[in-house]
Amino acid sequence: MTGPIAFYYEFSSPYAYLASERIEAIAARHGRAVDWRPFLLGIVFKRTGAGPLTTIPLKSDYSRRDIERTARLMDIPFVWPGRFPFLSVNAARLAYWVGAEKRPALSHALFRASFAEGRTLHEARVTLDVAEEFGLDRAAAEAALRDPEVKRRLADETEAAIAAGVCGAPYMIVDGEPFWGADRLEMLERWLETGGW
Amino acid sequence: MTGPIAFYYEFSSPYAYLASERIEAIAARHGRAVDWRPFLLGIVFKRTGAGPLTTIPLKSDYSRRDIERTARLMDIPFVWPGRFPFLSVNAARLAYWVGAEKRPALSHALFRASFAEGRTLHEARVTLDVAEEFGLDRAAAEAALRDPEVKRRLADETEAAIAAGVCGAPYMIVDGEPFWGADRLEMLERWLETGGW
Repeated sequence: MTGPIAFYYEFSSPYAYLASERIEAIAARHGRAVDWRPFLLGIVFKRTGAGPLTTIPLKSDYSRRDIERTARLMDIPFVWPGRFPFLSVNAARLAYWVGAEKRPALSHALFRASFAEGRTLHEARVTLDVAEEFGLDRAAAEAALRDPEVKRRLADETEAAIAAGVCGAPYMIVDGEPFWGADRLEMLERWLETGGW
Repeated sequence: MTGPIAFYYEFSSPYAYLASERIEAIAARHGRAVDWRPFLLGIVFKRTGAGPLTTIPLKSDYSRRDIERTARLMDIPFVWPGRFPFLSVNAARLAYWVGAEKRPALSHALFRASFAEGRTLHEARVTLDVAEEFGLDRAAAEAALRDPEVKRRLADETEAAIAAGVCGAPYMIVDGEPFWGADRLEMLERWLETGGW
């Protein structure tokens, strides 16, 4: 089978950022495309009872440390954004609004603004700054953030992700097999190499 | 540094079982000992607000699948016990009662009874069967399960685990660096090889 890797991600997830920096190379090595699907992890948290790792007792210190050392191990630039956790709904709306062709590159720009440059996408103004630097028309992007159709698209995509079983971020599905977490990228690649076990 | 690997585990955790089958070989390759420290994950769940993965919406199906495929990938026998999740307090009490020398071997016997043979350690009777097969005196083991000192030991060890930052199972600490999850064994080994990064 040669279907795409469905890549489900939340723009405020450090682990999703780390995966976003590697997923295309993995896909390319195995002749696959990547289907970029941002969603709102907060809606998933309402179903699972979970929350951002860095806000949970005991898990907070561990997860901050694990994220930082995983980034170093993967040799990916990483800083904490000015505000964390943060609301990424504007980023996700823009990612759908620009369409499938520009979505990967815009997603990289938004992720890197947060986690390589430390900018505060929580603020719509900053998200629009990134969109403008990316080459989008600022006024059109700003209007898109308030567009009911754009809002509904993201809500629908989030529901579709949940229906597909997405329980966290990042979450990848390839040939029907699900992989949750940046720490499953090696297993995902082995699955692609072997066809499963 | 050549301190031991502190190995924190919960007897009802499939991921802890998988790690228990590999931790000694990893330690041996790097001249380390393993300090076996069972604790009660349920007490940690009260602090973190989490619960057994297989009981959580969305995460249930995923985690069952991930556990089974991870066991196949690691080439470790795995079955689901007759009852899951289950109370492992009796198993953990016996593991402290037998002392540090017998604890690793008894822990293997208890883990394998659950996850290689599918037996129901939830029942004290079954836990005592395993203890007896292991060579312990059944009456003495049964008395130990009700011994206030044994009960307190496990409670104290669980509090000590939480104080050490343990937020899930399995959880390993080596040279002050924490690793949570069977999926961090490779990272742990790389840490031992390199001294960290």
